[in-house]
Amino acid sequence: MDSKSKQGYTDNPHFETMSSDFLYHINISTSSHDLKKLFSDVKFVCIGGSNGRMLNVAKYLAKELSSYMPETVDFTDLTGSSDRFVMYKVGPVLSASHGMGVPSMSILLNEIFKLLTHAGAKDVTIFRLGSSGGLGIKPGTVVVTTEAVNGEIKPVYEQFILGKRCERASVLDQRIAEDVKSCGTSEDDFEVVLGKTMCAGGFYEEQGRLDGAICHYTAEDKFTFLQKLYDSGVRNIEMECTGLAALTNQVNMKAAIVCVGLLNRLENDQVTTPVEKLHEFEMRPAKIVGRYIKKKLDEAK
Amino acid sequence: MDSKSKQGYTDNPHFETMSSDFLYHINISTSSHDLKKLFSDVKFVCIGGSNGRMLNVAKYLAKELSSYMPETVDFTDLTGSSDRFVMYKVGPVLSASHGMGVPSMSILLNEIFKLLTHAGAKDVTIFRLGSSGGLGIKPGTVVVTTEAVNGEIKPVYEQFILGKRCERASVLDQRIAEDVKSCGTSEDDFEVVLGKTMCAGGFYEEQGRLDGAICHYTAEDKFTFLQKLYDSGVRNIEMECTGLAALTNQVNMKAAIVCVGLLNRLENDQVTTPVEKLHEFEMRPAKIVGRYIKKKLDEAK
Repeated sequence: MDSKSKQGYTDNPHFETMSSDFLYHINISTSSHDLKKLFSDVKFVCIGGSNGRMLNVAKYLAKELSSYMPETVDFTDLTGSSDRFVMYKVGPVLSASHGMGVPSMSILLNEIFKLLTHAGAKDVTIFRLGSSGGLGIKPGTVVVTTEAVNGEIKPVYEQFILGKRCERASVLDQRIAEDVKSCGTSEDDFEVVLGKTMCAGGFYEEQGRLDGAICHYTAEDKFTFLQKLYDSGVRNIEMECTGLAALTNQVNMKAAIVCVGLLNRLENDQVTTPVEKLHEFEMRPAKIVGRYIKKKLDEAK
Repeated sequence: MDSKSKQGYTDNPHFETMSSDFLYHINISTSSHDLKKLFSDVKFVCIGGSNGRMLNVAKYLAKELSSYMPETVDFTDLTGSSDRFVMYKVGPVLSASHGMGVPSMSILLNEIFKLLTHAGAKDVTIFRLGSSGGLGIKPGTVVVTTEAVNGEIKPVYEQFILGKRCERASVLDQRIAEDVKSCGTSEDDFEVVLGKTMCAGGFYEEQGRLDGAICHYTAEDKFTFLQKLYDSGVRNIEMECTGLAALTNQVNMKAAIVCVGLLNRLENDQVTTPVEKLHEFEMRPAKIVGRYIKKKLDEAK
């Protein structure tokens, strides 16, 4: 392989010496695919938890960005039979699912970083379009993350590497966050706000819910913690933000985290919004990010 | 709801006071489903990472355990439009996907524990049928976990709960592990071994691979660590075992972890086994667990 293609979005000296690379979980290989031909034009990557939603995002962006799309857009899942993630390419945008939680997402990120490096893609921005539990915000509000914090409200991502506990700084570009936030308009029937986001290692105990199978704290303990989060500037809780911020920072890829709050955790634990409304909520991050992408593509004309 | 139905597989005093419960990620609710009617006969739960595999497991077990199955088995995904997990019921067996990593699996476990408690199911055993990287074993070997250890080779599962770092003991029933192991026979074209399993928070750095997008250690560092794991009795690495052992222990559900090693990490990082062979490898844990379930159903006749 051309050694130039191996710079880009990696931070691994061994990468340059690999004769071939099978990206196992997205089922794409340097020996079976022409990655330069297929992916060198990628400028934006949208990722989110669920398979169906990321297909909907691909379809939505293909329509919204139609003037930047090829004449026919093919919604074939590029991961074929991988059965782990889905991935679609619509013009300069990749839309892929990452499952739930940092470990799952970190696999997708590693493989997308390698894919784009093999392809020689440049100036890529990645967006996580997620769902989350809001804190002191109206259900349906979109939160653009200014800082991703862990379960101890620290901006770090912790990993065990070769038997040792390591911390990586969780760093996000403030200008992109503000630019994405500014894509909300007064005509939208929802608000877009800036705020910190807490990354949890689970949905129940780790988010202070009282309705899991296991719970060893009181309702008072829960509200004291959620209030402390709110007072620290945290506006929503999800399960991927520190990992995304730390790993993209490590490889110098620009990133933004844009999540809708499905409920207000200061009021509820259970998600009781009707399913049609939830589906509409879940597309709001794509609406905002779609406008941001369109603006950037217009500027680059 | 009948308060009796609320004991079982939970460890949460608030559970008894809930008037209804929407199991969000499996899309099943106490107010729309008769859980006693649907699930009170469940005795075995098989879980694994990917959706397609868990459908194959359901189909395989329906065939192997045909004498314990209803006349017609329905392979409808019980999670409907959840788009997070899949779940099938074949006679006394549930087969469900949990995605990748402990955070994703912990969501499924919480909802399955609650589902079975609402249903009043008793004497349930859960099996994780997984894929893993082997250590010093021939690719295709099935490892039944005796002890699940974290990235520091300690038998604990770490969580952040209400801002505090907590450790739960990762405990597995040794007799079940040995019984499952003994379901391998000399006629199988693969070995079944007992061994410790390491739970990693990712696939690349966290498993000591040299082929991720990020890697800050040398090949020598990697092999030193993998050898240390091997010398500690670890025979495979995956991404869920400590969480499964700790959470099932917390609610007193019997559990076993049965994973095939897709490769020998003392030799490779990349998965190079042809896809057809991989699919055959991936069904080996189901073969062994299917025999175990059949034995238990025969004994209970």
